[in-house]
Amino acid sequence: MAGFDICPDSNHPPENGHATAGKVITCKAAVVWGPEEPFKMEDVEVEPPRPMEVRLRILITSICHTDLSAWKGENECQRVFPRILGHEAAGVVESGEGVEGLGPGDRVVPVFNGECGDCRACRSEKTNWCAGYAVDPMRSVMRADGRVRFYWVGPDGTHRRPVYHFLNTSTFAEYTVVDAACVVKTPPAAPLNRMCLFSCGVSTGVGAAWKTADLKPGSSLVIFGLGTVGLAVAEGARLRGADRIIGVDINPDKFAKGKEMGITDFINLNDCTKPLHEVIRDLTKGGVDYSFECTGNRDALREAFLSTHQGWGLTVLLGVHSSPKFLPLHPMELFGRKIVATVFGDFKPKSQLPDLINKYLKGEEKLNLDGFITHELPFSEINQALHLLQEGKTLRCLLHL
Amino acid sequence: MAGFDICPDSNHPPENGHATAGKVITCKAAVVWGPEEPFKMEDVEVEPPRPMEVRLRILITSICHTDLSAWKGENECQRVFPRILGHEAAGVVESGEGVEGLGPGDRVVPVFNGECGDCRACRSEKTNWCAGYAVDPMRSVMRADGRVRFYWVGPDGTHRRPVYHFLNTSTFAEYTVVDAACVVKTPPAAPLNRMCLFSCGVSTGVGAAWKTADLKPGSSLVIFGLGTVGLAVAEGARLRGADRIIGVDINPDKFAKGKEMGITDFINLNDCTKPLHEVIRDLTKGGVDYSFECTGNRDALREAFLSTHQGWGLTVLLGVHSSPKFLPLHPMELFGRKIVATVFGDFKPKSQLPDLINKYLKGEEKLNLDGFITHELPFSEINQALHLLQEGKTLRCLLHL
Ligand SMILES: NC(=O)c1ccc[n+]([C@@H]2O[C@H](COP(=O)([O-])OP(=O)(O)OC[C@H]3O[C@@H](n4cnc5c(N)ncnc54)[C@H](O)[C@@H]3O)[C@@H](O)[C@H]2O)c1
Ligand SMILES: NC(=O)c1ccc[n+]([C@@H]2O[C@H](COP(=O)([O-])OP(=O)(O)OC[C@H]3O[C@@H](n4cnc5c(N)ncnc54)[C@H](O)[C@@H]3O)[C@@H](O)[C@H]2O)c1
Ligand SMILES: [Zn+2]
Ligand SMILES: [Zn+2]
Ligand SMILES: [Zn+2]
Ligand SMILES: [Zn+2]
Repeated sequence: MAGFDICPDSNHPPENGHATAGKVITCKAAVVWGPEEPFKMEDVEVEPPRPMEVRLRILITSICHTDLSAWKGENECQRVFPRILGHEAAGVVESGEGVEGLGPGDRVVPVFNGECGDCRACRSEKTNWCAGYAVDPMRSVMRADGRVRFYWVGPDGTHRRPVYHFLNTSTFAEYTVVDAACVVKTPPAAPLNRMCLFSCGVSTGVGAAWKTADLKPGSSLVIFGLGTVGLAVAEGARLRGADRIIGVDINPDKFAKGKEMGITDFINLNDCTKPLHEVIRDLTKGGVDYSFECTGNRDALREAFLSTHQGWGLTVLLGVHSSPKFLPLHPMELFGRKIVATVFGDFKPKSQLPDLINKYLKGEEKLNLDGFITHELPFSEINQALHLLQEGKTLRCLLHL
Repeated sequence: MAGFDICPDSNHPPENGHATAGKVITCKAAVVWGPEEPFKMEDVEVEPPRPMEVRLRILITSICHTDLSAWKGENECQRVFPRILGHEAAGVVESGEGVEGLGPGDRVVPVFNGECGDCRACRSEKTNWCAGYAVDPMRSVMRADGRVRFYWVGPDGTHRRPVYHFLNTSTFAEYTVVDAACVVKTPPAAPLNRMCLFSCGVSTGVGAAWKTADLKPGSSLVIFGLGTVGLAVAEGARLRGADRIIGVDINPDKFAKGKEMGITDFINLNDCTKPLHEVIRDLTKGGVDYSFECTGNRDALREAFLSTHQGWGLTVLLGVHSSPKFLPLHPMELFGRKIVATVFGDFKPKSQLPDLINKYLKGEEKLNLDGFITHELPFSEINQALHLLQEGKTLRCLLHL
């Protein structure tokens, strides 16, 4: 199944699916059969794409915390199994017809938050929440027909079972089918093993700083959670000339890496003897201009909110919170402080991500993508990659398919 | 104590305090001695203003729901008695020295949310939350020295007791002392019995539509609570060319007045057989562009939030919520919908309100202020005015002092 380019200096032209188009492909996928059950490498059948869908050959994928949460089944309503998780990846279009501007051989990144380009939201400047293809953690089937494109066939050949989709993408498989709205073309010369990071974590963090917060030079911020998403916020803030970037984590191992990414001050939550927001207000004359919640922890959310300066403080919520509980904020606390959530850093993936990618490739935005790649493993070792993330030992581990 | 102009066509020059400046003035004030106890008309001593303060002769005051909430003692931490409530008013500067641009005889409206003009917040475009004089429901003394300017003296002359301040203003008194930061000058020719409405309710509602929401022509909105604040939102929205203005209340008497103010559709919450946000989503193809919470009711807050369109919906919180409970929103619900609160409609009172007042006076903004004045009574009948508001029978009742 190898043979595609992941690096621009390779001379192999990408396969273009002439032999497989229109046919069911049987390939390897990492299937989760139940909450917290190890990924099982299974043979699955991947149906050909329907109109306005494409089938992708995934070449690189990595694991984001959102995959980890779904694997744990943290949200009851999301416990749909068997399922193919994964949403941060890069690959090549294998087949897919009638989709304008997209064809076999194109190098792409799948995106969990799609853009049809045509609905009221897509035509508005205000939002990247496409009416048809915005992220929907509840959906586990294709939008066109409410059915899956993955099937598992038992060893005896008779037990054919649907395998469910995840976040518009399902990238933990050699082949996947996605809506054309959920695919962003990358330049032919771009290295897919870097493009992969634009598929979720880095774009989300950078966009949160640039687009959601519209962060100004000279400003101060605090980031709760120094994983890939949090450190991508730091990268974005550093590139926009932030003055002070405070990083908060419970894992002190995250601090060395944070320094490279622009973090200027560190706070280990476990070392604090008073509420964290008080520590931050003391450090910053009353509070930071912005705070970014990148943990998914409810207490962190409240502390992040209270850490901003009364009057203009803005908290950006990035973390995915699984608890069915209410926001830990009093209505009156919204007077004088703002909170907004961001999906995919408020980037419209198809119309705005290519510009970010091009600026990175030309060196106009000096994003330190390499810093996020702490491990590389073959796809078959996906359980090890998950374990590394869960233990807080990795930012992104690239899995090669 | 009469003799000041409230209408521009009067020929009496305003008294300018030559006789009283620097002296304690004894005058009538409506004092509240405990939660839900009727206002008692008392003689109180009003001290002269300290530097950067002015003493005002209040000529007109009205009752806003925020006074009603404080009178009830809805917020435990705010139960400070005896107290002089009131924050929506108009009057004349009696005395006050060394305050630039403000002097005896000036016609003014006091404002509960002040502007020092000099702090980081006042110098920022982003906020009207002045570091020194922003609304603070907990404060019941003057900022300069932490003491009161009002004293009650018992009939025997020996029981001298402090009487507490409220919301930077305390306008239910013939004379009050306020920080110069909490006073906005109105043009000499402006009728004080209309200017009074700019002191809180109308500015708050109009500003919420214009400044907080930056409401666009052709948009749709829903307003929860058709009191003065809610109907001022409707006025603001109508003047900005909103297409559809849905009004929600539990009191059907509010609907006739609402029509004048631009409301296009009415919903009586008590007539609904399904959740209100579903009714509104059905009416508006998926939800309104904006919702405005002007009730102070927690269930209304949630319904208002859910009534907006996924993707770009913005909820503006105006109501004052007294419960110690959390926001009835799940963190994940912030993805795709926004909520912000507004104090005083995000107007910076001293630097931005005069422009609104001038546009009203010149007829450039056709605000129907008269529509808000449903009753007029002498100050001595303040308990009747409170009763009218509590019963939902009035928008604003002007009290003449
Ligand atoms: N909004 C979006 O579009 C979007 C996109 C991607 C990921 N996410 C979410 O962002 C969050 C971060 O993702 P990631 O991949 O960077 O995760 P990660 O696991 O790599 O990093 C999370 C970090 O938070 C730290 N942490 C955990 N609890 C903490 C606490 N109470 N206080 C301080 N730090 C704490 C961990 O030690 C870790 O360093 C997740 O919730 C994920 O689901 C959201
Ligand atoms: N944010 C600010 O700067 C600011 C300024 C002024 C007033 N306020 C607050 O705004 C709110 C409105 O003030 P007002 O003076 O217009 O009050 P009001 O009493 O005149 O009007 C409130 C309206 O809400 C209606 N209502 C009550 N419960 C309701 C429910 N569950 N659903 C629908 N309608 C309901 C009432 O029938 C009434 O018509 C109050 O909470 C007040 O404290 C805030
Ligand atoms: Zn992700
Ligand atoms: Zn769309
Ligand atoms: Zn008020
Ligand atoms: Zn100020």
